[in-house]
Amino acid sequence: MMKINLTHSQIDLNTLNLEEKIAEIDAMITQKSGAGNDYLGWVDYPLHVDQAELKQIKEDAKYVREHFDTLVVCGIGGSYLGARAVYEALKGLYPEDPFKIIFLGQTFSGTYIEQVLRVLKRRKFAINVISKSGTTTETSIAFRLVKKLLVEQIGEEEAKKAIFITTDKEKGLLRPLAKEGYRTYTLPSDIGGRYSVFTPVGLFPLACANIDVDSFLLGAKEAMQLYANPNLKENNCYQYALTRYAMKEKLSKQVELFVTYEPHYQMLSEWLKQLFGESEGKEHLGIYPASCCFSTDLHSLGQFIQEGNPLLFETIIYVDKPLHDVTIEKDIKDEDQLNYLAGKNLEFVNEKAFLGTLDAHANSGNVPCIVIELDSLDERSLGHLLYFFMRACAMACYLLDINPFNQPGVEVYKKNMFKLLGKK
Amino acid sequence: MMKINLTHSQIDLNTLNLEEKIAEIDAMITQKSGAGNDYLGWVDYPLHVDQAELKQIKEDAKYVREHFDTLVVCGIGGSYLGARAVYEALKGLYPEDPFKIIFLGQTFSGTYIEQVLRVLKRRKFAINVISKSGTTTETSIAFRLVKKLLVEQIGEEEAKKAIFITTDKEKGLLRPLAKEGYRTYTLPSDIGGRYSVFTPVGLFPLACANIDVDSFLLGAKEAMQLYANPNLKENNCYQYALTRYAMKEKLSKQVELFVTYEPHYQMLSEWLKQLFGESEGKEHLGIYPASCCFSTDLHSLGQFIQEGNPLLFETIIYVDKPLHDVTIEKDIKDEDQLNYLAGKNLEFVNEKAFLGTLDAHANSGNVPCIVIELDSLDERSLGHLLYFFMRACAMACYLLDINPFNQPGVEVYKKNMFKLLGKK
Repeated sequence: MMKINLTHSQIDLNTLNLEEKIAEIDAMITQKSGAGNDYLGWVDYPLHVDQAELKQIKEDAKYVREHFDTLVVCGIGGSYLGARAVYEALKGLYPEDPFKIIFLGQTFSGTYIEQVLRVLKRRKFAINVISKSGTTTETSIAFRLVKKLLVEQIGEEEAKKAIFITTDKEKGLLRPLAKEGYRTYTLPSDIGGRYSVFTPVGLFPLACANIDVDSFLLGAKEAMQLYANPNLKENNCYQYALTRYAMKEKLSKQVELFVTYEPHYQMLSEWLKQLFGESEGKEHLGIYPASCCFSTDLHSLGQFIQEGNPLLFETIIYVDKPLHDVTIEKDIKDEDQLNYLAGKNLEFVNEKAFLGTLDAHANSGNVPCIVIELDSLDERSLGHLLYFFMRACAMACYLLDINPFNQPGVEVYKKNMFKLLGKK
Repeated sequence: MMKINLTHSQIDLNTLNLEEKIAEIDAMITQKSGAGNDYLGWVDYPLHVDQAELKQIKEDAKYVREHFDTLVVCGIGGSYLGARAVYEALKGLYPEDPFKIIFLGQTFSGTYIEQVLRVLKRRKFAINVISKSGTTTETSIAFRLVKKLLVEQIGEEEAKKAIFITTDKEKGLLRPLAKEGYRTYTLPSDIGGRYSVFTPVGLFPLACANIDVDSFLLGAKEAMQLYANPNLKENNCYQYALTRYAMKEKLSKQVELFVTYEPHYQMLSEWLKQLFGESEGKEHLGIYPASCCFSTDLHSLGQFIQEGNPLLFETIIYVDKPLHDVTIEKDIKDEDQLNYLAGKNLEFVNEKAFLGTLDAHANSGNVPCIVIELDSLDERSLGHLLYFFMRACAMACYLLDINPFNQPGVEVYKKNMFKLLGKK
């Protein structure tokens, strides 16, 4: 289902002598004994999904699809990137489904919000607001604006049936709304935003998009069982974590370039950028997570990767079978000289671009490359893939002696901003 | 109109003693005597725009808007990023204009292309294909597919009136189509793709989107006149180029993070990434160009920027007046505790996020920041801004003794790919 190819990585894991350290950290993760261990709920969450809540989510999603044509998801960071990454990866950027998901609450841009509100005036929409504390300013503002529009459209009582809240079980500003009759799902208190895609944070919007959340959770569960293995030789997840660790320690690489070959996987890269950047970027440490979509960006950043400042390594996620495909047909005139491709699908061309680029970068360009290859990307394999990266990220941080689950640096700009905004 | 603020850059330009070098390079640019000088046509292009062609472009754009509801632009890299950056920056991501521009030809993704073709089946579309050589594989494949669909929809003769070609004056596979009756615009042979936004490459799609191309060109011309000045003290453009040069040479910064505060400016960052990455990423040199959209990405990469590996500096493009805005109204219940913002526009909030983040990163986080501030972003100021960066990029490369106008490394993956595809 999923292969990891380290032959172009320039790293020999055997020479690192970190097998014991890896096994120790594995125990810390499984036993939840490491730094930040009050946020390790995600590790075995796939085994402990609240089945009653999951059933409710699926019923509500069915109700939403039957009564509305749009779901507005209000969230930012870990409260929207996971759902958006999975939604786009499985549906593409121009999905056929007339039921749409629109993401809001991730910006202060008046332009973006005004334009989305204008679109929503012509739609029949429900809202899912996602915030642990209910005080995230971007999300709160968007929710206030979009809720007002909804009440104008359908009235206060009907609006209550169209608003779905995902928040902390007890605390925060959104929780009291449960008493007013709003449906409320729980964001477990021992799971941080960037590790929350398998909780209702991800599951409710995905269910509304007709995505099979059971298969998605099954994939995560299978990955959990596969990667809870202290033996480095058998554990692809830890091999990946250790290889990227060695990229910086042994090869002085400072930037991890997440590479995909499909425009609709770009949000998956954004999710990865939060996961690794926010987990590892502490104490002046960490590998900067960047992303590219090839072949598009070979025509913008390709030159730099091939011949520029050698501070990058690549982690390439390549999926063999695309969601849709097109055949290149023969053209009698052949003015564009493309007939040598007649009868081929774009899948064939894209794969050759991938293989040719891998050779160009890894061999001619001396850029270390890690390749993660999947047969196809469906609910189950995506669940597997996301869990793989979450566990690898925890391992990567513990290898640096860093708490993977806090983000103290994010508070600084907020504090300054609140002061300037005059917030008491 | 446009201010550059270097007070948070940690660089004192006076201590670098490069005033003379800057003046020498300025002369090289103006006199077109430096490396790659056969591609310096963009330097004074705003003075030499072919007025007859420009008139034709505006007439054709009017015709396209009257007869079609969509323009499909087939191009990749420099043949689409400029137009897309300007289109989105001026129109937003959900433009009201029923006339749409769809970008194709920048990917081998069967999923993306199949979904776009499906959308186009319900639209009445014209095509603008942009390629100097006519052999760019991504663009050629997209053009073959989309042209076939167009001929199916309206027939071969009508299709000729709906296809607009931008290509080399004499060479390449697309030029012969001019003889068959297709309208053809010229991509000047002394201007490379990433410096081509002011040529028909950018102008025709922008004119179709009802963008005032005269003002856009005027902005470029004004910038040209302002920045063709060898005196570093008076030249903001060269001050920016020299400051970023010193970021690497003096402060060992390896990554330039282009920061905007509007989601619809993200393609502008993509254009910048190509401009600097492809121009400077040679001979193992160059600063890696990355981008963030704040405040969105403060909730994903903010932690890393604030406290992680200190390899970044920021170049922030902040625009005071947004395209659209929304007022936060008072809510009687105030359950979200946002009433302290009642009566304020999002412009006010976004500006405080910008100022609070600048303080957080530059002061608490010790991240050097360059701020480019504009009153508003319209055709004229965007023309100014893009020319500013093009000229700064040339200066930056010459400071490193690098040819800013070639991209030899891009050929390696193509060669490998063609071999795998079986191209003769």
